[in-house]
Amino acid sequence: MAKRRVRIGLIGYKFMGKAHSNAYRQAPRFFDMEWEPELAVICGRDERALKAAADKFGWQECETDWRRVIERQDIDLIDVSTPGDLHAPIAIAAANAGKTVWCEKPLANSLEEARSMRQAVEKAGVFHAVFHNYRYCPAVALAFNMIQDGLLGKIYHFRAVYLQDWIADPSFPLVWRLDKHSAGSGAHGDINSHIIDLGRYLVGEIAEVSGHLETFVKQRPKLAATDDRLGGTASTEMGEVTVDDAAMFLAKFENGALGTFEATRFALGRKNHNRFEINGSRGSIVFNLERMNELEFYSNDDAEAHRGFRTIQVTDGVHPFTGSWWPAGHIIGYEHTFTHLVVSGFERMAKGENPTPDFEDGLRNQRVLDAVTRSSASRKWECV
Amino acid sequence: MAKRRVRIGLIGYKFMGKAHSNAYRQAPRFFDMEWEPELAVICGRDERALKAAADKFGWQECETDWRRVIERQDIDLIDVSTPGDLHAPIAIAAANAGKTVWCEKPLANSLEEARSMRQAVEKAGVFHAVFHNYRYCPAVALAFNMIQDGLLGKIYHFRAVYLQDWIADPSFPLVWRLDKHSAGSGAHGDINSHIIDLGRYLVGEIAEVSGHLETFVKQRPKLAATDDRLGGTASTEMGEVTVDDAAMFLAKFENGALGTFEATRFALGRKNHNRFEINGSRGSIVFNLERMNELEFYSNDDAEAHRGFRTIQVTDGVHPFTGSWWPAGHIIGYEHTFTHLVVSGFERMAKGENPTPDFEDGLRNQRVLDAVTRSSASRKWECV
Amino acid sequence: MAKRRVRIGLIGYKFMGKAHSNAYRQAPRFFDMEWEPELAVICGRDERALKAAADKFGWQECETDWRRVIERQDIDLIDVSTPGDLHAPIAIAAANAGKTVWCEKPLANSLEEARSMRQAVEKAGVFHAVFHNYRYCPAVALAFNMIQDGLLGKIYHFRAVYLQDWIADPSFPLVWRLDKHSAGSGAHGDINSHIIDLGRYLVGEIAEVSGHLETFVKQRPKLAATDDRLGGTASTEMGEVTVDDAAMFLAKFENGALGTFEATRFALGRKNHNRFEINGSRGSIVFNLERMNELEFYSNDDAEAHRGFRTIQVTDGVHPFTGSWWPAGHIIGYEHTFTHLVVSGFERMAKGENPTPDFEDGLRNQRVLDAVTRSSASRKWECV
Amino acid sequence: MAKRRVRIGLIGYKFMGKAHSNAYRQAPRFFDMEWEPELAVICGRDERALKAAADKFGWQECETDWRRVIERQDIDLIDVSTPGDLHAPIAIAAANAGKTVWCEKPLANSLEEARSMRQAVEKAGVFHAVFHNYRYCPAVALAFNMIQDGLLGKIYHFRAVYLQDWIADPSFPLVWRLDKHSAGSGAHGDINSHIIDLGRYLVGEIAEVSGHLETFVKQRPKLAATDDRLGGTASTEMGEVTVDDAAMFLAKFENGALGTFEATRFALGRKNHNRFEINGSRGSIVFNLERMNELEFYSNDDAEAHRGFRTIQVTDGVHPFTGSWWPAGHIIGYEHTFTHLVVSGFERMAKGENPTPDFEDGLRNQRVLDAVTRSSASRKWECV
Repeated sequence: MAKRRVRIGLIGYKFMGKAHSNAYRQAPRFFDMEWEPELAVICGRDERALKAAADKFGWQECETDWRRVIERQDIDLIDVSTPGDLHAPIAIAAANAGKTVWCEKPLANSLEEARSMRQAVEKAGVFHAVFHNYRYCPAVALAFNMIQDGLLGKIYHFRAVYLQDWIADPSFPLVWRLDKHSAGSGAHGDINSHIIDLGRYLVGEIAEVSGHLETFVKQRPKLAATDDRLGGTASTEMGEVTVDDAAMFLAKFENGALGTFEATRFALGRKNHNRFEINGSRGSIVFNLERMNELEFYSNDDAEAHRGFRTIQVTDGVHPFTGSWWPAGHIIGYEHTFTHLVVSGFERMAKGENPTPDFEDGLRNQRVLDAVTRSSASRKWECV
Repeated sequence: MAKRRVRIGLIGYKFMGKAHSNAYRQAPRFFDMEWEPELAVICGRDERALKAAADKFGWQECETDWRRVIERQDIDLIDVSTPGDLHAPIAIAAANAGKTVWCEKPLANSLEEARSMRQAVEKAGVFHAVFHNYRYCPAVALAFNMIQDGLLGKIYHFRAVYLQDWIADPSFPLVWRLDKHSAGSGAHGDINSHIIDLGRYLVGEIAEVSGHLETFVKQRPKLAATDDRLGGTASTEMGEVTVDDAAMFLAKFENGALGTFEATRFALGRKNHNRFEINGSRGSIVFNLERMNELEFYSNDDAEAHRGFRTIQVTDGVHPFTGSWWPAGHIIGYEHTFTHLVVSGFERMAKGENPTPDFEDGLRNQRVLDAVTRSSASRKWECV
Repeated sequence: MAKRRVRIGLIGYKFMGKAHSNAYRQAPRFFDMEWEPELAVICGRDERALKAAADKFGWQECETDWRRVIERQDIDLIDVSTPGDLHAPIAIAAANAGKTVWCEKPLANSLEEARSMRQAVEKAGVFHAVFHNYRYCPAVALAFNMIQDGLLGKIYHFRAVYLQDWIADPSFPLVWRLDKHSAGSGAHGDINSHIIDLGRYLVGEIAEVSGHLETFVKQRPKLAATDDRLGGTASTEMGEVTVDDAAMFLAKFENGALGTFEATRFALGRKNHNRFEINGSRGSIVFNLERMNELEFYSNDDAEAHRGFRTIQVTDGVHPFTGSWWPAGHIIGYEHTFTHLVVSGFERMAKGENPTPDFEDGLRNQRVLDAVTRSSASRKWECV
Repeated sequence: MAKRRVRIGLIGYKFMGKAHSNAYRQAPRFFDMEWEPELAVICGRDERALKAAADKFGWQECETDWRRVIERQDIDLIDVSTPGDLHAPIAIAAANAGKTVWCEKPLANSLEEARSMRQAVEKAGVFHAVFHNYRYCPAVALAFNMIQDGLLGKIYHFRAVYLQDWIADPSFPLVWRLDKHSAGSGAHGDINSHIIDLGRYLVGEIAEVSGHLETFVKQRPKLAATDDRLGGTASTEMGEVTVDDAAMFLAKFENGALGTFEATRFALGRKNHNRFEINGSRGSIVFNLERMNELEFYSNDDAEAHRGFRTIQVTDGVHPFTGSWWPAGHIIGYEHTFTHLVVSGFERMAKGENPTPDFEDGLRNQRVLDAVTRSSASRKWECV
């Protein structure tokens, strides 16, 4: 089989740039792929930092203007890994140029942007994907299969939290993620969007919501290094926090299930605590990203005296994706979820199908985010 | 020290009657009490079943009419352990007769009843208590102490669920707890009231709420044995479920903390999963009733490289109540929470103070329950 | 049914006296018993402390000489809850007097004593029991049933530890449990005997052992209060520790299974960590006394993709003993194991059968303890 | 800084070949390295399978005779990842040729071989390392640091198990790991050697042991595909299992600590359960490879009422190695331990130091393995 090389242009080289680069590099080392990614061009504004990242992550070339990357004929796929305010312009331009577009989550900073992006890829007829990578955690994929197979029966409850603590300290500075213009929102778009995606993936579409967004710490030290929106040391000057610190909402799914969602960056001790529990008429499931190689499962079909939540080590050859890595019990890590997303997306594209999740998922996610924001203002339930 | 014997009249002899009887019996066997309970009279309508319960639980006499118990001069304390619809009439009559009144939770089936009860005990000047027993779980009492000592700092989040699964099977019959007239509400009053009490105890008063009540299974088999509202076999005739199966709400506390509350009887695998997590500016705490001898604590004061949620075995002599039982690591059970409530209540009364929690707590709890019910109807936030 | 009252004479009124008293008191309150215990006489040497214990625990009368208790015609059952050096003389005298004899574990301070005790009860033809109470933990009883039903298949491994930390501090004084004359041995007889009993109960007889006993802290402060062997404050005078601090051994069971056993009082953080794991050809089981309401079970019969250790909450009506207490998920505590032992023992005696475990079990246990002690001296494997 | 490229010759391309290849590839992508590995030559006997592995893992060239790899002047480092019977011949030849030698564990199939290997690298004056990769688990490295800092005080107990279940099924075929000639021993050399290394690393040298090796299933189906010793389908012909299925031993460390070690491939449900607990005079530590991103720590220095085992998420920038990967709470996997070993080894070599652990560690490990084997035969304690 002659492999096809898909030449990637990656816009952004920080946290997500690093994670995506790794996924493109590692995917063909562990999986048999008909189409293989080629790390062609990486793009960022700070030339020196970009060059260092290119060397480190293994990219062939650098560009400092994303428009030039899109104009290049030798690039097949544009990966948008920038802060949220650049998602729409880059993705739309890339689609218009006929490129495959893969975009970090949340899809956009607003519902309007998300709609335009969805429209652009549809009109251009290009492949598109959004990096809701946690669907590609083997335990989550297993949960999906089990629900599809009816092992949970009719779903009554979806209960999800995404808890972090990295800004609980009030002296933590005003990085771009705390700026509405750059990030769109705070914990809401950053991590609520993840559990919304998991809820949609596993349970179904959300019909209506009642929510509340809160900013506990309203002023923080500005960054000393103004040329880098992503980090740096704190200055003595204070600035406004323009996004939420925490976001919580109740939900009714279209199929009648109830949902609770909570995202916060103020839960001391919780580092990356993306946890959900699903209760159905035949059983229940629990997942926690901090122990992402495990899935808890309670089956009401077990003998009455022997029922209990069992901890499945989702590391076996029979589980999704894990057979390509190591023997059972040899766990994988966070970055592998991106690798699986790449493997799956390329496999689908090789068959002429769009990857999943895609911009339509990103758009539906954004509708939920938007409805929660509206509800937080109106103090009542809002339809999605 | 001459001990004073407080003669109890217990109305109700099923689940709570059994638990309260045990508490009165056991309290003086493990704790030094100035005032001691005496199991004088137990009351119920089914004479034969009542007699058996009296023998089993160790009561001196039986009465089949609660009014007669209240009329007796030799009874000091009326314990109301009936279904909710009888709380108000019995408690008010008892208060009017000058008796100490201890009442099961939730205090009443409606806010109006709760107000009347609160008024009655106040007017009569009698001692009063409500059986929110989980405050008397040593781990919860320790959490309270730690919060009072500032170990959690400013509280940002209270996150509580009370999950059970005993009616998840649609063929489970229409017991009294599924009947609005008897029980007032379903999971909401029965178990949401517990976590509301814990929230109020540990974090403070709740200012406003947005909630939703749901009934998943709207019809169930009626009970074959109509003479017993508490249990029995299912008949072939179907009847309406008039209470909620699940109740969830968002809350804002007066002090600015955010709360999420969820109570359900449809969470397969969760038997008595009363779990809360509190995140503050200095640390976090987690409790789960199914492992009620443990308290998880994360302290941001620990050395940076060694921070983590620690599982305190709250079974040591230095912990609340536990020194009177067994050596460290020898756990206690559910029933002991009632014993501690009795010990504390009697100790306070011996000093001329009202027990805690009391009817004022019961009333405030009811206000929250009521606001959630209103919000579920109005589809918007409601003030408590 | 006319109930028979069995009048108890309890020798010893400290930790075990308190636990046994509670069991006798509570058993008939929760279980239907044909024969019921009556708390007749409690016996100890310190008259004042004894009187306080009698009042607290609910005994009718006191005696300060155990011989007088045995001589009384109105006493049916002698409960030996003294330090180990008095087990043999009291139990043998009681048997000779025709009394039922229930004795704390380990049965004796030496194999010779144990043999004499076994002989005495056999010759006298009286009922006898030994308080290896952990067999009566519902989770352990469930494990037994599951093994009997073949759910674990052929047993390959039994792996048990009993870890405590109450003497890890070198300034902890020389209580009776650290004195060979009173206690026979240290962690070995006190807590290794428990896990030996569990191994024998669940897996079978032990054929040979290789072991090691260690005393980490060889001198400790003597007790200031010499009149009380069980506790008190430390003096400035030092004395020899004459027992082991830790005891570990390898074992081969008669059926070919391998065993590892370790008992220590020097495992900081472990309060009452009696944990075992059993691996068989069809599944595995794990128990930990600190979470005694739970049993972990791995079944190889589960679907390949859904296998995992499940945590059974052994609190349901279908589980051993638990139906007589509270609804599912409402946990019980340490003391309930004694209550179950009393219920079971009385039920068996009412049917004319000896309780279980009995002196034969105590003797076989002692043979294992003795073989380990011999092996620790000989530095080689020893037959039991 | 001009980087030096170290050209690797890897002998073996199966499980360990895959893991080592990944480590060499990934190390420079996440860490700043003065010396960088270059994947030069991979070697194996089956030309076709070897070519596929070379492509997959990213090697420049293939060789089918390991002698030719050693003869090449352009190769700096020989990585021995073959079954155990080839460790000694390859490693000794490589040392004699002046190559750096990195060897999989256990170092050899016998103590004699290990001695010769140690002698060869010493005589040749070359760098040498052995792949006891679990030292490079961040949680284990953190445990090491904490012990060095005195946080555990004087060590009393080391308690380790390595439990797997991959051959619990008696119909699992006779792969090379079950053949004494190829593998030297069974669970003993394969996984006991891992926990012996951790014991030596964290606690110190082992002085004497009492052990037992057991083979539960003595005959198994031979492999149908005789040309591949590592796997394949089972035939109908049976063959002898010539290694142990399980190996357990007691140990005394030179510093007086007690140890228990158990390795088995017959613990159903345990996939890669490498767990140890260490109890010292100031605290305790627990590690489990299946949750390798966590370390449990109990500190007796905590306030008395708030002590408990805390679960440190060893994923923070302040922890060993983790800062080069992802933000806190974003876990890493099994393979990363090899990457860290490579990073550390190259860093040390760049400074002119030998990597750690090295052949001396491998030899000392082998002495313990050998003493246990002798003890299993002599039925008594043996000095290491």
